Parts: sequence; C-alpha cells; structure tokens
Amino acid sequence: MTSLSPSLDELVDALRRLPGLGPRSASRIAEHLLSQDRERALKLVSALDRAVKNVKHCELCNTLTDDAVCPICADTSRDHSKICVVESPADQRVIEETMTYRGLYFVLMGLISPVKGVGAEDLRLAKLWERLKSDPAVREVLIATPYTPEGDATAHFIAKAVASVAPQVRVTRLARGIPAGVELEYTDANTIAGAIFARR
Amino acid sequence: MTSLSPSLDELVDALRRLPGLGPRSASRIAEHLLSQDRERALKLVSALDRAVKNVKHCELCNTLTDDAVCPICADTSRDHSKICVVESPADQRVIEETMTYRGLYFVLMGLISPVKGVGAEDLRLAKLWERLKSDPAVREVLIATPYTPEGDATAHFIAKAVASVAPQVRVTRLARGIPAGVELEYTDANTIAGAIFARR
Repeated sequence: MTSLSPSLDELVDALRRLPGLGPRSASRIAEHLLSQDRERALKLVSALDRAVKNVKHCELCNTLTDDAVCPICADTSRDHSKICVVESPADQRVIEETMTYRGLYFVLMGLISPVKGVGAEDLRLAKLWERLKSDPAVREVLIATPYTPEGDATAHFIAKAVASVAPQVRVTRLARGIPAGVELEYTDANTIAGAIFARR
Repeated sequence: MTSLSPSLDELVDALRRLPGLGPRSASRIAEHLLSQDRERALKLVSALDRAVKNVKHCELCNTLTDDAVCPICADTSRDHSKICVVESPADQRVIEETMTYRGLYFVLMGLISPVKGVGAEDLRLAKLWERLKSDPAVREVLIATPYTPEGDATAHFIAKAVASVAPQVRVTRLARGIPAGVELEYTDANTIAGAIFARR
C-alpha cells in the first residue's frame, strides 16, 4: 500500500524496536503523539536526548547514573561491607523502596541467558571481581537475581566466581518462598515447592 | 529514596505518559535504551523530531500524512463516491491491506467517549460535513468504527448527522458477525448474538 506518511512509518519503526512494544502498540503511541500531544512528543525528544548525553554507568557499581560515581556508592553513611547484586536499576529501586537494606549494590544490566546469547562475559562482572579483590571491607555479597532459570544460572555463576576470587566473602541469596498477602491456593506449584524445600 | 539519575527519572516519566505504558514498562524501555542501545535511542530522537516537524493532518480526510493532501485523497484513480469513516490511521491501514476497498477515507482520530470526555465536537467532523455538502460526487459513507460502546455511539452520531447534512448520501456500516477462521465455541456470546441478529 502507498505510504501516507514516511515520517510516521519511520517513527513507528523506531518505536517497535523497543522492548515490549509490538507493531500495534508502536502505531498507537506514534499516532497519539502526533495527533493529540505534540508537546509531549517534544518533551520526550528532549528527555531522551538529555538522558543519552547525561546517563552513564557508575564506575563502581555499574548502575545508571548522572555522576561518575552514583550517590549510593558515594554515600559514606551506607554499609560498605555488603554488596547486593541485582539485574537492573529497576530491581535496585524496588530494593531501596523496602528501606531494609543499607549496603551497596552491583548492577549486572542483564542476566546470563544462553537463549538470548548473553554470557557471563557480557555482564561486566570484572568490575565486581576487582572490587572484591581490592576492598577488604566487603564481607558479604547478597545475590538478588530472580528465581527464574536465567536468574538461577547467574546466581550460580556469581556464587562460584566469588568463592574463587574472594573466598573470605560470604555469599547469600534472597530467600525463596511464599510472597506476602497471597493465598496459598493462588500460588504456583514451583513457588510452594521452593518454600517447602527452604522451610525453617 | 535518593535519585541515582535525574535524567533517567525524567525519561521514565516522559515514557510512562505514553498510551499503554506503565511505570514498569517505561523503566524497562529507558534502561534498555541507555544501557544497550544508545544508537537506537538517538535514532528514536531523530525519528520523533522529524515526525513532529513533518506529519500533519490531511486537509481533506484528516489522516496523518507528510503532505497537505494525503496520497489517497490525491489519487484520482480511486473511487471518490465513497468515504469510509475510521477511528485511526492504523484502522485505515488494515482496511487498505485487505485491498477490497478503493474509495476514500475520513479519519476521526478518536471515538466519542463520555467516559474519556471526548464529545462529537472533538472529532473535527465539521471537515466531513463540509465535504458532504460541497461535493455532490459522494454517494456513500461507510462507517467502519468498531462494535464497542464507543464505536457504536460514534456510528450512531455520524449516521444521524449525515442524514440531516446530506440526506442524498447512503450510510452503511461494516457487517457485524462471526470472524473468519474462528471456531464458534471460542466466539463470545455478544458476537454470536450480533451475528444471529444480522443473519441473512
């Protein structure tokens, strides 16, 4: 069919490459921005442009931040003896929101996934090994990857590597079990099996 | 909690205002663009920027296009006696893909929705009434809004208005019925009831 608007097609094409967006949601977003909300479109342009220029990886923990060293790593009042390993800044954010953890982080920006072709070498873990070797203050690495095949593979790899790189460091992982506020009958068998296995 | 990156927060905020994106998918997209795919981020910036500058509404049919009059309205080989009224350029695209309709279009860029506060006056229908009054070539208006409460309300409004503005014009609507390739047992009761009601 004739293209009514090559500029619109190009925008839809750029949007549909984003994770979680298919051709339909990409069209819907593009049409919304162009028909009802050009001001929002321009705000998105400037926010994206600014973020690409300003956001970098923290030199110490690899999270996304505007500074060379992120505010959490730079905060001397935090407990520098613990490093919590998470998949993404979003996971780091939910842990921060619990206000129950005052240690530092290491942000993998991904998980080991043979299916997606992501190996351990893609996770910039060298930064973490260096830190563990050079900083004797670190006593514990808390692995907070999810209980999925990829999260498990990543946790297993990191636990083994820490044991060889820094044997004095304790390796822990988030407890596996029944989530709060959910009836048992609505909980999947895997979760219940994990909770039985980890019963105390 | 301390913001690790005001630029990232601002980007997530701009993304989550898009239709169909919640805070989680907005974070996921932002992190993906900034951690793995800055080139794609820059492409999106330029595509969006160009689209905002180039894309306008067709003077005749209101669709999104790069030209003052869209290629379909400008195509003299098409059947100018029929106007198909659709909700969006995306709906127009799926009708074009069937290659069974060679008439013109009118694109509402929305539907009447009391719930969302969208009234008939928000749909720029004045453009359509003018066209019907001034162009005696138009013989039929085919309403192709969906069979939803909003689509029905819009179809009803347009049918009534056409009858008073241009009584010589025939008003039709896409047939309601059983979709192709779907077993009856998987079809919802509303659709079956509609098909019984519209049986021929």
